Amino acid sequence: MVNVGIVGGTGYSGIELLRLLSSHPQVNIEVITSRSNAGKPVAEEFQNLRDMAELRFSEPEIDSYQNCDLVFFATPNTVAMEQAEALLSAGIKIIDLAADFRIKDIGLWEKWYGATHTCPALVAQAVYGLPELNRDAIRDAVLVANPGCYPVSVILALLPLLDQNSINAASIIADCKSGTSGAGRSASVATAFCEVTESVKAYAVDGHRHLPEIRQVLQAVNKQAELVFTPHLMPMVRGIHATVYADARGSGDKVQQVFEDYYSDEPFVDVMPAGSYPETRSVKGANQCRIAVHYLPDRNKYVVLSVIDNLVKGAAGQAIQNMNLMCGLEESMGLNALGIMP
Amino acid sequence: MVNVGIVGGTGYSGIELLRLLSSHPQVNIEVITSRSNAGKPVAEEFQNLRDMAELRFSEPEIDSYQNCDLVFFATPNTVAMEQAEALLSAGIKIIDLAADFRIKDIGLWEKWYGATHTCPALVAQAVYGLPELNRDAIRDAVLVANPGCYPVSVILALLPLLDQNSINAASIIADCKSGTSGAGRSASVATAFCEVTESVKAYAVDGHRHLPEIRQVLQAVNKQAELVFTPHLMPMVRGIHATVYADARGSGDKVQQVFEDYYSDEPFVDVMPAGSYPETRSVKGANQCRIAVHYLPDRNKYVVLSVIDNLVKGAAGQAIQNMNLMCGLEESMGLNALGIMP
Amino acid sequence: MVNVGIVGGTGYSGIELLRLLSSHPQVNIEVITSRSNAGKPVAEEFQNLRDMAELRFSEPEIDSYQNCDLVFFATPNTVAMEQAEALLSAGIKIIDLAADFRIKDIGLWEKWYGATHTCPALVAQAVYGLPELNRDAIRDAVLVANPGCYPVSVILALLPLLDQNSINAASIIADCKSGTSGAGRSASVATAFCEVTESVKAYAVDGHRHLPEIRQVLQAVNKQAELVFTPHLMPMVRGIHATVYADARGSGDKVQQVFEDYYSDEPFVDVMPAGSYPETRSVKGANQCRIAVHYLPDRNKYVVLSVIDNLVKGAAGQAIQNMNLMCGLEESMGLNALGIMP
Amino acid sequence: MVNVGIVGGTGYSGIELLRLLSSHPQVNIEVITSRSNAGKPVAEEFQNLRDMAELRFSEPEIDSYQNCDLVFFATPNTVAMEQAEALLSAGIKIIDLAADFRIKDIGLWEKWYGATHTCPALVAQAVYGLPELNRDAIRDAVLVANPGCYPVSVILALLPLLDQNSINAASIIADCKSGTSGAGRSASVATAFCEVTESVKAYAVDGHRHLPEIRQVLQAVNKQAELVFTPHLMPMVRGIHATVYADARGSGDKVQQVFEDYYSDEPFVDVMPAGSYPETRSVKGANQCRIAVHYLPDRNKYVVLSVIDNLVKGAAGQAIQNMNLMCGLEESMGLNALGIMP
Repeated sequence: MVNVGIVGGTGYSGIELLRLLSSHPQVNIEVITSRSNAGKPVAEEFQNLRDMAELRFSEPEIDSYQNCDLVFFATPNTVAMEQAEALLSAGIKIIDLAADFRIKDIGLWEKWYGATHTCPALVAQAVYGLPELNRDAIRDAVLVANPGCYPVSVILALLPLLDQNSINAASIIADCKSGTSGAGRSASVATAFCEVTESVKAYAVDGHRHLPEIRQVLQAVNKQAELVFTPHLMPMVRGIHATVYADARGSGDKVQQVFEDYYSDEPFVDVMPAGSYPETRSVKGANQCRIAVHYLPDRNKYVVLSVIDNLVKGAAGQAIQNMNLMCGLEESMGLNALGIMP
Repeated sequence: MVNVGIVGGTGYSGIELLRLLSSHPQVNIEVITSRSNAGKPVAEEFQNLRDMAELRFSEPEIDSYQNCDLVFFATPNTVAMEQAEALLSAGIKIIDLAADFRIKDIGLWEKWYGATHTCPALVAQAVYGLPELNRDAIRDAVLVANPGCYPVSVILALLPLLDQNSINAASIIADCKSGTSGAGRSASVATAFCEVTESVKAYAVDGHRHLPEIRQVLQAVNKQAELVFTPHLMPMVRGIHATVYADARGSGDKVQQVFEDYYSDEPFVDVMPAGSYPETRSVKGANQCRIAVHYLPDRNKYVVLSVIDNLVKGAAGQAIQNMNLMCGLEESMGLNALGIMP
Repeated sequence: MVNVGIVGGTGYSGIELLRLLSSHPQVNIEVITSRSNAGKPVAEEFQNLRDMAELRFSEPEIDSYQNCDLVFFATPNTVAMEQAEALLSAGIKIIDLAADFRIKDIGLWEKWYGATHTCPALVAQAVYGLPELNRDAIRDAVLVANPGCYPVSVILALLPLLDQNSINAASIIADCKSGTSGAGRSASVATAFCEVTESVKAYAVDGHRHLPEIRQVLQAVNKQAELVFTPHLMPMVRGIHATVYADARGSGDKVQQVFEDYYSDEPFVDVMPAGSYPETRSVKGANQCRIAVHYLPDRNKYVVLSVIDNLVKGAAGQAIQNMNLMCGLEESMGLNALGIMP
Repeated sequence: MVNVGIVGGTGYSGIELLRLLSSHPQVNIEVITSRSNAGKPVAEEFQNLRDMAELRFSEPEIDSYQNCDLVFFATPNTVAMEQAEALLSAGIKIIDLAADFRIKDIGLWEKWYGATHTCPALVAQAVYGLPELNRDAIRDAVLVANPGCYPVSVILALLPLLDQNSINAASIIADCKSGTSGAGRSASVATAFCEVTESVKAYAVDGHRHLPEIRQVLQAVNKQAELVFTPHLMPMVRGIHATVYADARGSGDKVQQVFEDYYSDEPFVDVMPAGSYPETRSVKGANQCRIAVHYLPDRNKYVVLSVIDNLVKGAAGQAIQNMNLMCGLEESMGLNALGIMP
């Protein structure tokens, strides 16, 4: 059994971790912390967790984690970096679902996140937690930076093309549509039901924090990689649909095979048959990325469609996949539930 | 032309007043106030009002209203009672869309609203703004208490039955389903998209502020009237569906005619044919109450179904209907737009 | 391992059976039939089932089921009664998710379902598949009538009160709100997105097929039981919220304890603390009925709130719970997933 | 007064025409036809139109239109072309809301629409009904091809850039998100509530009928114009959000001014301030196209965001704007209602 702790269990990533871990056969939830809810049963905050009657929020003190093998940070940005050294020193592994350890260039991180980084050395040591890219490094890691939700959907759509040098890497446009749970669980007019439902809008066209993250990962594969990234807010809870455009180099006739080969051994990337259209609802609640690639011969462009559940393969499920690797468990353990549809 | 002022134009009732008044041929919006937004163009807060480019929020000072014939309070409870005397003294009529003047029993009001009433004398003078009940009094009124949204849907469903003494007045159950806009425009987790969509729940079963309001109005018609009132939150923006149950006295065979006769001259109450089911979407954006009455001979009960748009016939449209009456305009002026469907 | 067959796997109950059975440790899906889709991979029809790559629809012939221990009918009404005798003769157990075996009074069934029943003898033999009421009989049954979705929500809300003789059994009103998946998966304007979303309506006020079913079950417990049942269509996919009213006999002060005691050993009925409000989303995807009971001393009435996922505890999950009992497995096997929220 | 007829009033464009025309001060709805509903009151089919109690569907015979000045075809494709000559011969003007007269190249039309065109001569004579492009020609036209909904959103986003030769016209990508009402009002599983809600998907990536229409219009302005067009289905009823990408020629610093100047006199195109994000809900029910243009200096690309209500500026409102022009009325008559929000 792996004893885990969860820091900040009152956001949507935290509650999803609890839901998924509740059916993981090799995990014991040792502690879950929340300063504002310390002492309160988790079931009181989240009605769907009423079966976990005994679980209560604790104070987020270092001592709370002493029996943990691994701690998940499902906290706002800048929280994990304050506690990471103490935990690692105590031999406790860390997966940060926020952004503290994702960007290697500290100056760049500080610009986008508007804060001073308190442990740059750990950033260097941290492994970017995308198993499809870094599986072996994750197995050996003690500190994993769980990827952002948009980056997962965009990067997985592009890896086969970049790997085969099939595109002009500077021509990428990622037009992404996200459900509202991506904005987190907080009191704000902007995410109110009456403001979100029955409407669509773009935002952060001039720059979103996930842009430097995507760029860093793509450029590690191909130095020429550049992209326009446009996020849109959708009137739904879960799901990201990335529509990714890129100019083909040479003919695109074989692209279906390229994708199928690249992902043939991946348990959580599903390449659909040629001509398909993935639906976000097909991965609702599931740790899956479903991809279809289209080639437009007239325009010599690829249009790659990829969908994930932003709270699962884009956050909590991804984190558990990383945990399984870091703790020597089977990679897909506890993650085989199908999408819930309708 | 009627010169009007709007106090507190940043909530959903306020924005709906602006939308409806923008196509009223005899109204000039003289001023709209909001302490927190003073100086800001209204169009900046509400994208649908960008055509009203010149309209800006002002400070909510008494002087601001000096050119107004009538002022709407689209404010939280307890705001209107603070300013009512000064406005009335200056010869300015008032329609309060909040609850300050709805409950005649001051002690009862203070119990339910948790505040001390500052102008009990005005409460006595105020007219409850339901034209189907109080049309003549509204014409002569200078201070109108615009009804709550739930009460409109429930009272209009019951008036014909109470008027004809057709029911056991103590047997009423009003099971009401409301869209989320009824909860107002504010930053709260409880009304966030991800908390409201794809779910239904009851609330305030043990007592909602609209209960004493409904009871007061029904008992004025029939002293025996008593009810159970259960509000439910629906995953939609606009609309209330009241499902009202009552025990029939005698046979209910003629009830369709009773409803058709009672409302035959009403411009904004639509009695549907026998066997019909009103849909809330059919009145979206429209100042209509649509009603169908069903009689269950086996159980000797009536089931009355009534729908309104809580922001229109349940708030802003009703207020304009009252304004038309108070200002000697045709009652339906500016209120004839059809529901938007789909 | 239990070898199961599914007849009619292209509706919402069928797909939900597949989803739930896919993580059941003791079930092998031997065959799934669909006349119109015979030969087609299931994954082609349902994108969320793409992991079940090998599963294909077969012709619905009796021979197809020869290796099955148990067959689920997730078909329209009147299909199961045509094949039941042949299967039972072959020693294959049956769970019918439709209504062919729910109503004991054949004349009543024929009136409500507009068909001639072809095997009345089997109706007499069939067990109504509500474990909270009939657990022991289900264990021994070879033919189980899986309950309707509305009946589950209403009956579970009333059993403790009827058992303790706490209510006037003739005073029941069940005001029920259901998600649209209850209407099935078929091409119709009435269930189109643009017709359903952002709206609420009642239907079948004068009589719904689930009314005689509820009445039969309640009257088996208390002969005086009578009810008004009003279904409403909600703008959401999954979930039923039953709001059940009944006149109390004597004081209702102890009612919380009555519910807690009655359901203390039930794995899938969750009695919430006094003053609670169950949300349908809290059971989305979960085999749970969550209940809160309120007592209104002023009106001497109970208001019981109960929620289920109509496709799980109201259909497919319930069916698996019955299968577990019929096949000697642990009752909750494969059914412990938590609700997905948000 | 203009006497109008509506052919095919049972789809979403037809019902929206009725809603909008009901408040048009200079229009008399002379006749509305529907073969399948002949004799039936319109209000029986559409609850929101119950105020139009006297209006009934007639048979779609030529004689029915004899008192009409103008007839709207709100029909499926290929219906208008069958009746157009007879109507025009009788001196009746025509606006076709379907696609029969949009594509000038008959061969191209026949390829995309899978039918033989029956009146190519009228195609040559027809005017494409986008007033922002063809206002004067529309004034003189007797036959107007009302544009497709996607084309309106994409073309209006690009006209200022093409007019100023500010982009590489072959670099256009139009990533479009549409509400479900764009798919029409028909019985189909694909548009069922349970299939559409809480999900996003792309479709017709390899070619949509609106692609040749957009290309024809853009190429009339700039022969080099070429585009990738990707439609997506959104879980909402109304609204299109076009996100249009193009490579800038030269610096894009002045682009805000270019848009403001180009549309300065347009009553129904609203250029938002720099840095804005239009929301589809802001134009719900309104005949508006709201646009914001963003320039990304790092990538030297424009990202133009434009929103319309597909049933209003994308269909029925646009048609009325065209009617006003064709009949010598003020262009904006009957079209000034604001968007309904929330």
